[in-house]
Amino acid sequence: MYNKNIKVMDCTVRDGGLMNKWQFDDEFVREVYDACVEAGVDYMEIGYISSEKSFSRDEVGPWKFCSEKDLRRIVGDNNSSIKLSAMADIGRVDLDDIPLAADSSLDMIRVACYAHQIDKAITLAHHCMDKGYETTINLMAVSGVGEPELSEVLNDVSKSRVPIFYLVDSFGSLHCESVQYLIKKYKEAMPDKVIGIHAHNNMQLAMSNTITALMDGATMLDATLLGMGRGAGNCPMELLIAFLKNPKYRMLPLLKAIQEQILPWNKKIEWGYHVPYLITGALNAHPRSAIAYMESVKKDDFVSFMKEMHDYELLE
Amino acid sequence: MYNKNIKVMDCTVRDGGLMNKWQFDDEFVREVYDACVEAGVDYMEIGYISSEKSFSRDEVGPWKFCSEKDLRRIVGDNNSSIKLSAMADIGRVDLDDIPLAADSSLDMIRVACYAHQIDKAITLAHHCMDKGYETTINLMAVSGVGEPELSEVLNDVSKSRVPIFYLVDSFGSLHCESVQYLIKKYKEAMPDKVIGIHAHNNMQLAMSNTITALMDGATMLDATLLGMGRGAGNCPMELLIAFLKNPKYRMLPLLKAIQEQILPWNKKIEWGYHVPYLITGALNAHPRSAIAYMESVKKDDFVSFMKEMHDYELLE
Repeated sequence: MYNKNIKVMDCTVRDGGLMNKWQFDDEFVREVYDACVEAGVDYMEIGYISSEKSFSRDEVGPWKFCSEKDLRRIVGDNNSSIKLSAMADIGRVDLDDIPLAADSSLDMIRVACYAHQIDKAITLAHHCMDKGYETTINLMAVSGVGEPELSEVLNDVSKSRVPIFYLVDSFGSLHCESVQYLIKKYKEAMPDKVIGIHAHNNMQLAMSNTITALMDGATMLDATLLGMGRGAGNCPMELLIAFLKNPKYRMLPLLKAIQEQILPWNKKIEWGYHVPYLITGALNAHPRSAIAYMESVKKDDFVSFMKEMHDYELLE
Repeated sequence: MYNKNIKVMDCTVRDGGLMNKWQFDDEFVREVYDACVEAGVDYMEIGYISSEKSFSRDEVGPWKFCSEKDLRRIVGDNNSSIKLSAMADIGRVDLDDIPLAADSSLDMIRVACYAHQIDKAITLAHHCMDKGYETTINLMAVSGVGEPELSEVLNDVSKSRVPIFYLVDSFGSLHCESVQYLIKKYKEAMPDKVIGIHAHNNMQLAMSNTITALMDGATMLDATLLGMGRGAGNCPMELLIAFLKNPKYRMLPLLKAIQEQILPWNKKIEWGYHVPYLITGALNAHPRSAIAYMESVKKDDFVSFMKEMHDYELLE
């Protein structure tokens, strides 16, 4: 499985923050950062870059914005080999909100978009590149995109300057064959681009889909500590690193951060495999209804949830 | 993924019982049985068949023995399409303990063995076949068996009358490539036999390995409700059924049993993915040390456990 091009990206703060509105204290973020640095993780996505106009700091924590002041409080001059990333959502950030890379602790901006937003995503990504950032486009919810539209998206991206394109299984609906199919399609459409994978664990396939994508040519691999992330969560970083057996990575710093910082959150927030997430994943549906159900008093009544989600014949 | 030869086997009581010494009340076992019947599950493994001399009923529940009296109290005449199975461990059951199939509610006996026990396993399996049972041999812990010994085992089994042979990933160490390799090897050595798969979830790959084995030709698929089973647990039945989308199976009865019977146990016993199980899985080691660690007060100190399990360079 050794591949010198592998880059592992920790998304614990960014994707985990979807579960608590990025209300992490500095100690949490600093310990995740330190762990990633010591473990040899290549990139850490520390949050979103968003316009202050789009969200209120009374509601969301600092990692929804990734201001330079907040970043430096955690990483100082980032005298390490790790690169820092922030995610940009279309429509939630103005071009003027993005500082020059030379003035920022961020090394990379990842532009997340749905298929119908691909032109805006390419424009934003080019803008970020022109400001000096490494840049990716992360096409979300690809399991819900029809073949003709997907081909058009890939054609548009292939003609862009954006060097990295992500397969994102937002619904946690893909399995090995669909991952293989999509990675092949991505590579054929964009032979010169780096392909990344961001998996969700609704069907307990996040880890498996990540390594399948790797075997088929993806080299940017997203993961989070203990799989912390929205809904069913992500590919667990500790599993991925244990599996890769790549000498550039180390397990112990990750385990230390998990037991000191992640487990306490895990007792407060229920991410990870739960039956409602399986149901939306199996139905290839957005997890929002499962997330809402998990926050209700009925959360353990799986039968009612499945009936609510339609009496799909296949899942009767 | 439709395959008319697929047979799904529920092992909730048998494998889950490894976590509580089979101390299930009748209501639990009956509800699991009813759920499997209503869901169209093909086989239910309701426990072990063991000699009363080998274990004390003061320590273990009735499903360590599967006496006809206990079976009938749950299933009556088993007027259903489901077949009942019990597992036999080498050395824990005498030939005389096994009734004629005509006098038993059991339809199948699965003989579990390690590689060095294969001759005894074939003898026991032939004895069970001669008494009228469907029979399998389940070669445990195959991830720790060297290639020459494995070839010898497969050669022995190929010459036997036993019609079904199982790939058992006792340590939860296999991933898609190793499953593909082993299934291919099994099929080449035993082209006329049915191949089964029993996976464990240490690396969150039980579901993935089960469907990989299916794609490569395994047709007997083991699973348990909510993955209940020893250590990291098994392939979750509800996931497998949702994935198969085979019209002969139904989800709702399984979800009902999970929420009514399995969830209460899940709050008492911690099976499923936990970091100590990942560590033994990644090291290709028996989970017993992780199980003991999970029962200690240090259970959340993953760093110490990994150091205890050796400072393996690859997992440093």
